[in-house]
Amino acid sequence: MEKSRAERMISKAEGLDAIVIMNDGSPYLDSTFWYLTELSGGVFEGAIAIVGKDGRLDVIVSEMESEAAAAGKGNIYVYKKRGEREYYLRKALAGAKRVGFNADRVSYSSVAYVEKTVKNIRVNDAAPAILSTMTVKTQKEIEQTRKACKISSQVAKEIPDMLSEGITEKEMAFKMDFRMRELGGMGNAFETISAFGANSSRPHHSPTDYKLAKGDAALFDFGTKYEGYCSDMTRTVFLSRPQEILARAYEVVLEAQTAGIEKYRDGAPAKEADLAARKVIDESEFKGKFIHAFGHGIGMDVHQGISVSPRSKHILREGNIVSAEPGIYIQGVGGIRIEDTCLITKNGCERLTDFDRRITFV
Amino acid sequence: MEKSRAERMISKAEGLDAIVIMNDGSPYLDSTFWYLTELSGGVFEGAIAIVGKDGRLDVIVSEMESEAAAAGKGNIYVYKKRGEREYYLRKALAGAKRVGFNADRVSYSSVAYVEKTVKNIRVNDAAPAILSTMTVKTQKEIEQTRKACKISSQVAKEIPDMLSEGITEKEMAFKMDFRMRELGGMGNAFETISAFGANSSRPHHSPTDYKLAKGDAALFDFGTKYEGYCSDMTRTVFLSRPQEILARAYEVVLEAQTAGIEKYRDGAPAKEADLAARKVIDESEFKGKFIHAFGHGIGMDVHQGISVSPRSKHILREGNIVSAEPGIYIQGVGGIRIEDTCLITKNGCERLTDFDRRITFV
Repeated sequence: MEKSRAERMISKAEGLDAIVIMNDGSPYLDSTFWYLTELSGGVFEGAIAIVGKDGRLDVIVSEMESEAAAAGKGNIYVYKKRGEREYYLRKALAGAKRVGFNADRVSYSSVAYVEKTVKNIRVNDAAPAILSTMTVKTQKEIEQTRKACKISSQVAKEIPDMLSEGITEKEMAFKMDFRMRELGGMGNAFETISAFGANSSRPHHSPTDYKLAKGDAALFDFGTKYEGYCSDMTRTVFLSRPQEILARAYEVVLEAQTAGIEKYRDGAPAKEADLAARKVIDESEFKGKFIHAFGHGIGMDVHQGISVSPRSKHILREGNIVSAEPGIYIQGVGGIRIEDTCLITKNGCERLTDFDRRITFV
Repeated sequence: MEKSRAERMISKAEGLDAIVIMNDGSPYLDSTFWYLTELSGGVFEGAIAIVGKDGRLDVIVSEMESEAAAAGKGNIYVYKKRGEREYYLRKALAGAKRVGFNADRVSYSSVAYVEKTVKNIRVNDAAPAILSTMTVKTQKEIEQTRKACKISSQVAKEIPDMLSEGITEKEMAFKMDFRMRELGGMGNAFETISAFGANSSRPHHSPTDYKLAKGDAALFDFGTKYEGYCSDMTRTVFLSRPQEILARAYEVVLEAQTAGIEKYRDGAPAKEADLAARKVIDESEFKGKFIHAFGHGIGMDVHQGISVSPRSKHILREGNIVSAEPGIYIQGVGGIRIEDTCLITKNGCERLTDFDRRITFV
């Protein structure tokens, strides 16, 4: 029989007796809880998932979530009062000494709570084992991501038809979000970035009432979720001819993306893709204007585990899903970014997103 | 001059030399960062806000966020490399010994990172000081929440017109989300709960393809954001006459909500509202079917700080914003919940949300 997700995770956590995944209050909810239980919705504040040394999965939830939890994996323990939650936690961790936590995704107080509740445990960081399990996607997860990517790709194709002079950043974000939902997307993967003109030089700009004007770059960074799995893509187009410098930046970004994506393959150091793209930009007149990493892992969190940056130590694996998103940002003028969601394969990568990447004047 | 938010926060943190607010990766972003900077958007992964003993606010952000950060409060320090981030962090904490963290909202690894970067600090939990500051809303925050509530109230009023036999839970959630955006809402406060028939007995049900049938309860728990501030409300209606037990449960829930809200006022223990509502339900034939708390604080997080539960120790203060949401859940049959967002005032409370709470048969 194929190993369960919990079994694979604990087998990577050398020396640990158990892994504890804790949800705090929303939005501090750890997607690892959904990964292990294979639930596709629900809130589950205060829920705990414990992976035992033998790969057993225990899930402790409040009475309010008991019906919902029953649809997922694991042995469900329902508490009504805080004392019962602690009883089940001690029971699930009986005999465990070295206990791993998802240290980047668990609050300081939650760890203190477990230490106090279950005496004599040694706190360990299980994040490396958790991430190396979760970043290699199963076939089911790839299909879920593919569906999310298909929906956002359709919207990317429709961008030129949606745009017109005078439309605001907020209006465009709204239209795009609406279309993603209409096409079957289950909510945004993140707040849509819709940035026109000089605003597009802020990589994480929030949409405003600024109206699109002739010559503006119009940058859209967006994604949807399908059964919890995210897509992430960026398309930049222009309203009629922009300043020459922006058209030139577009060319360079596109070339940089191609150069980076060529390095994506099973076994390659992730940093090679970043360095290849960065080389293209830094050898152009836009040296130093690529001010973020080339990519990041994508899963149930839109930024998951893997960093594709100049100092990344990650070695890409078949089944990793990562973004490829070089950009050039010129303060006061505008910014260009082109981004795809990519699946790492044995001999290269497959772009799960698709749109016309050639320079587009609306 | 009126005290700044940072000044008010540190003045409540007795004995602390500084408070450190840290963002991890999305969605582990601490709304306290936005509260202090008064920014209304942006991502700010990895950003740090430090409140000094004198109320000074230092904000450390990556180059990518520097333009966006400039629109907010605080002294901005921009880092390009991790070493620079550490330099600014040490500088901001120079001389500080007792350092407070938002322990429920900071990851275990972030605290370890600060301890390692800035030697000889003592880690303290500043969450009580942070929450007692943030849960007493300023006039500006009340107006922002009022706008969010006005938008969702309009949608609550339109629910009967949106509903028809055969519509799915997902379709209704989509229609409602669309309307909230159309009316000026800036994204969902949380994933809309749209639950029909027996599904409504799960308080945190995720919308499915289940089709609305005659006699079903249809429960909608939803809210929007306005400049970051959340609304939260629940309306339950019926498609034609339901089983008598559900109509009766509706009556009891409405009575329980009224009883609870009557206890809402400056100076009252929060638990009194819960106990008053719970008494109504537990003295009815639905004893034990109210399986969650009566309310919670609402702010930039839809669940913020205050718990309105039987064991809550919180004393309500003028300017607190809390939900009032009793429910009755009958497994296999359905659930009823009625919820408003309430502003605590000197002599009582003001419901910021509004809709026809009388039993409604569509």
